[in-house]
Amino acid sequence: MYKLYYATGTCALASYIALEEAGADYKAERLDFKTNQQQSPEYLKINAKGRVPALVTEKGVITETPAILAYIAQAFPKAKLARLDDPFAFAQAQSFNSYLCATVHVAHAHKGRGYRWATEESSFADMKRVVPKSMAGCFELIEKGMLKGPWVMGEQYTVCDPYLYTIALWLEGDGVDLKTLPRVADHMKRMAERPAVKKVMGEQQAKAA
Amino acid sequence: MYKLYYATGTCALASYIALEEAGADYKAERLDFKTNQQQSPEYLKINAKGRVPALVTEKGVITETPAILAYIAQAFPKAKLARLDDPFAFAQAQSFNSYLCATVHVAHAHKGRGYRWATEESSFADMKRVVPKSMAGCFELIEKGMLKGPWVMGEQYTVCDPYLYTIALWLEGDGVDLKTLPRVADHMKRMAERPAVKKVMGEQQAKAA
Repeated sequence: MYKLYYATGTCALASYIALEEAGADYKAERLDFKTNQQQSPEYLKINAKGRVPALVTEKGVITETPAILAYIAQAFPKAKLARLDDPFAFAQAQSFNSYLCATVHVAHAHKGRGYRWATEESSFADMKRVVPKSMAGCFELIEKGMLKGPWVMGEQYTVCDPYLYTIALWLEGDGVDLKTLPRVADHMKRMAERPAVKKVMGEQQAKAA
Repeated sequence: MYKLYYATGTCALASYIALEEAGADYKAERLDFKTNQQQSPEYLKINAKGRVPALVTEKGVITETPAILAYIAQAFPKAKLARLDDPFAFAQAQSFNSYLCATVHVAHAHKGRGYRWATEESSFADMKRVVPKSMAGCFELIEKGMLKGPWVMGEQYTVCDPYLYTIALWLEGDGVDLKTLPRVADHMKRMAERPAVKKVMGEQQAKAA
């Protein structure tokens, strides 16, 4: 059985949904970021980076969302969560996930985690002010081309979809008007209707309450 | 034939070395960042993000270093640049590459590309001051655990190795003393001795001259 460490409102949601879509036998273990549980000695043994997600498998721990998502796709080939037969098609999905991870998530993180890269309150305020613009810029590229439709990679639903959904959920709080992104908004609607997404969102809410 | 777009001193070096190690038939095309060639209309057609690397294949373009590296490993299985037979082992390599991409490279980027996340000169200066500490923190994790030795993944040389080498080359300029990282320094030495690395570094230098 897999164990996924997550925290509410984080990118770990993508892996959570992917496990559910894959039909995996897993348990989702919630960490409380308010009490800094991700920095506890117990958790640092699981993930020395003190971050979520972390997926505990029989062979060991996997960290980093793009790695976990590709792993789930490969470990559950019947779920068809990525094109596994074609290195180029697989690379397209990986490229999308890497963009979300290293550019879009990073742009978002400057709203509340500026202390990773600066020390002054004035810098944090400056970073916060830029987030609506940088996130809008990232999502313009997604809206205009990367999101092929109806799913990210086209006709096939893949692990890219829960990842995009997870980060798109941050847009409103980041000051980006979803009306300027009709295709992304449409994707969010279709995601919210999926049974796996409904189940995970409900569980997450119940545990956070 | 593949075409790799790169710029001197960037993370594209990792893909350049990986193509050479794979024995791929490729051409490396240098973009001049000083004249902002990565933002030219011609290049934006290849990579709308205006960044390097971009790998042009017969099927289309792949962007983002972790995606390109995994692609090279999968497209050239005989080169054994990743464990392709075991999703967990593959995920470990992907996790390492994702960490370099989304955390380590991002930490480094705050030295010279603060304008991506802020607007004030005071913020840029603040960000620059933090880089030696944030990069040292990232590399402490690599030194103490992630780098298994002799190569990143252990006995097998993989696409993680040129990526680590590429980013480790930035450490001195980022104010991190390599003497505090003996295992990383040792890895760099071993990398520099590889024929593929020597060839690529020589070519890069010749084209930049």
